[in-house]
Amino acid sequence: MADEPAFRMSGSGNYSYSKNSGYQRNIIEAAKELISKAISEKLETSNFASSSSNSSKTFRIADLGCSEGPNTFLAVQNIVDAVELKFKHHGLVGSQLPDFQVFFSDISSNDFNKLFISLPPERKYYATGVPGSFHGRLFPGASLHFVHSSYSVQILSRAPKEVEDKNSLAWNKGRIHYGNASNETFKAYEAQFLKDMESFLNARAHEVVHGGLVALLLPGCPNETPHSELFFNKATELIGTCLMDMAKKGIISEEKVDSFNIPTFNPSMQQLEAVVKRNGCFSIEMVDAIPQKKPQPKALSSTMRSGMEGMTKKHFGDEFDLDMLFDLLSKKFEESFSNFDPEKAVTQFVLLKRKDRN
Amino acid sequence: MADEPAFRMSGSGNYSYSKNSGYQRNIIEAAKELISKAISEKLETSNFASSSSNSSKTFRIADLGCSEGPNTFLAVQNIVDAVELKFKHHGLVGSQLPDFQVFFSDISSNDFNKLFISLPPERKYYATGVPGSFHGRLFPGASLHFVHSSYSVQILSRAPKEVEDKNSLAWNKGRIHYGNASNETFKAYEAQFLKDMESFLNARAHEVVHGGLVALLLPGCPNETPHSELFFNKATELIGTCLMDMAKKGIISEEKVDSFNIPTFNPSMQQLEAVVKRNGCFSIEMVDAIPQKKPQPKALSSTMRSGMEGMTKKHFGDEFDLDMLFDLLSKKFEESFSNFDPEKAVTQFVLLKRKDRN
Repeated sequence: MADEPAFRMSGSGNYSYSKNSGYQRNIIEAAKELISKAISEKLETSNFASSSSNSSKTFRIADLGCSEGPNTFLAVQNIVDAVELKFKHHGLVGSQLPDFQVFFSDISSNDFNKLFISLPPERKYYATGVPGSFHGRLFPGASLHFVHSSYSVQILSRAPKEVEDKNSLAWNKGRIHYGNASNETFKAYEAQFLKDMESFLNARAHEVVHGGLVALLLPGCPNETPHSELFFNKATELIGTCLMDMAKKGIISEEKVDSFNIPTFNPSMQQLEAVVKRNGCFSIEMVDAIPQKKPQPKALSSTMRSGMEGMTKKHFGDEFDLDMLFDLLSKKFEESFSNFDPEKAVTQFVLLKRKDRN
Repeated sequence: MADEPAFRMSGSGNYSYSKNSGYQRNIIEAAKELISKAISEKLETSNFASSSSNSSKTFRIADLGCSEGPNTFLAVQNIVDAVELKFKHHGLVGSQLPDFQVFFSDISSNDFNKLFISLPPERKYYATGVPGSFHGRLFPGASLHFVHSSYSVQILSRAPKEVEDKNSLAWNKGRIHYGNASNETFKAYEAQFLKDMESFLNARAHEVVHGGLVALLLPGCPNETPHSELFFNKATELIGTCLMDMAKKGIISEEKVDSFNIPTFNPSMQQLEAVVKRNGCFSIEMVDAIPQKKPQPKALSSTMRSGMEGMTKKHFGDEFDLDMLFDLLSKKFEESFSNFDPEKAVTQFVLLKRKDRN
């Protein structure tokens, strides 16, 4: 169906996402309370409470950008528990409670075999895997009750074309991201994010039942912070500097660095709210910001490696010396880590509700 | 949730199921007409035709024992086309037509990554993968409209315990299947099949909507044919003979052959009908038998290798000489192929409909 982005947050072996996602797991833990609160206060149970005893009802949950686990299992279990609790508070018991079906979704190059083998044996839901890009349709119309997506919608469907075009004002020479780049480069990234979010919201608007919820967690830029000061952007920028160092030593070509652009955009809360409002299919029910903890330089370098290993190898070739790159990065982190302000980054939490037609 | 059978119809590399399933593909082609007819004549459309225009409807299809493709894609496309045709004949057009969601299911060691990457890009349905054993629950209650399973329900959840027990009358010494074995061994296999089919039907009774259809295709024994004469059983028996030859030469231990029992049972139509009637949740709407074509000895040997490679290696160890075994089998097929009567085998087709409560 839709084209799939070339980029995903996954490496392999020692640097695989599933081994190095403690950083993101902390965020899931912090998000756990927010999501429980969201379900407790905002989930409509009337569809299920009013069901006749004859027809079984299924509560369908999707985790978009699930990767291969285990974080997705924690997030999903939390959602199932919170929904069940809510139903019980509304007086549903035993067979009146719905069955839960969970759709674990990621792009089709995700390791679903690993995901399936790792499914918690004691799970209280029916598990399925759904391959494909969340920028397009993945599910039948009005078939989902709760959509969760953690640290995924900041990933663009592609780097903006203009930043790879030598003849464009947005050409991103000598850099790999927008954080410290020209205003034209920033605008191209921003436009790509707005376009991708519009596709994401339009697809979900079809798939989510009226009154259904969409919980998004993503790295974001505090409203008053310039994009160049954002913690995540500064870290990404530093990888660009390391690559340029390698180019200057003749280890890789400068042209290769010029054509390498990380397809992520970390919006401000204002930008995120604006795109949801312009789309018009969802109301914003909750917003919150989870503060950033300052990681150790080594942990941050390792987390970034797990996120970028795949795309770096794909761009620079299998022979590319990843160890050299991330050793360089570790050193640069250690030198400059006092300049990294964890207050200049948040994990944004947004809870959307699918509007009724009227 | 449920334990998974150790056996599946899959090898790897040159002998993988996806490369050697031409034999079964012929059966799918022959089954295509039967399934189109089943949908045209037996599918109830009232649930969908009466839906208000406001609420989207999803038609959910499961293929149980899908393996890694491509046969499952042909089977599923045929079902989707036939259902869509039926709805169109009943006057549904455009957005009145339901969305299709297809659940490709097999045990969790199935290569879902390969399946997902091979999905037909032009498909008209939303695809999902479901890992787990079809002898247990895989789906929420009353969530499926059409279940398809081709050449899978003859696979038992395990070889019967008794045939591996030296102290049992059913101990299957020197053989690997029930075809030519003692009556006790046969009875143990039959009991396992009846138990497994009961589990299968009970699980599907929960999952399939009232009026929903279950189409089963499986290798079967013509009613008047003794199990020892059944084409498939004779072929399996011959593998046992080859293994015993290898044991006599000291290549493998006889004990290892004694403890090796292929977990498949090819029922007669009478047996199949009896288990469905005893279960009581489904009516039998259609039965048919697709005649067996006589394959070339080499093709048969290759098909059997693709089906048995995995479990043979698992039992005899990675060092086991599969080439030797299947070379021996090819020779034995060539010597004795005139004794193999293709009329003594059929592919059984059974269409079941989930009964209403009353």
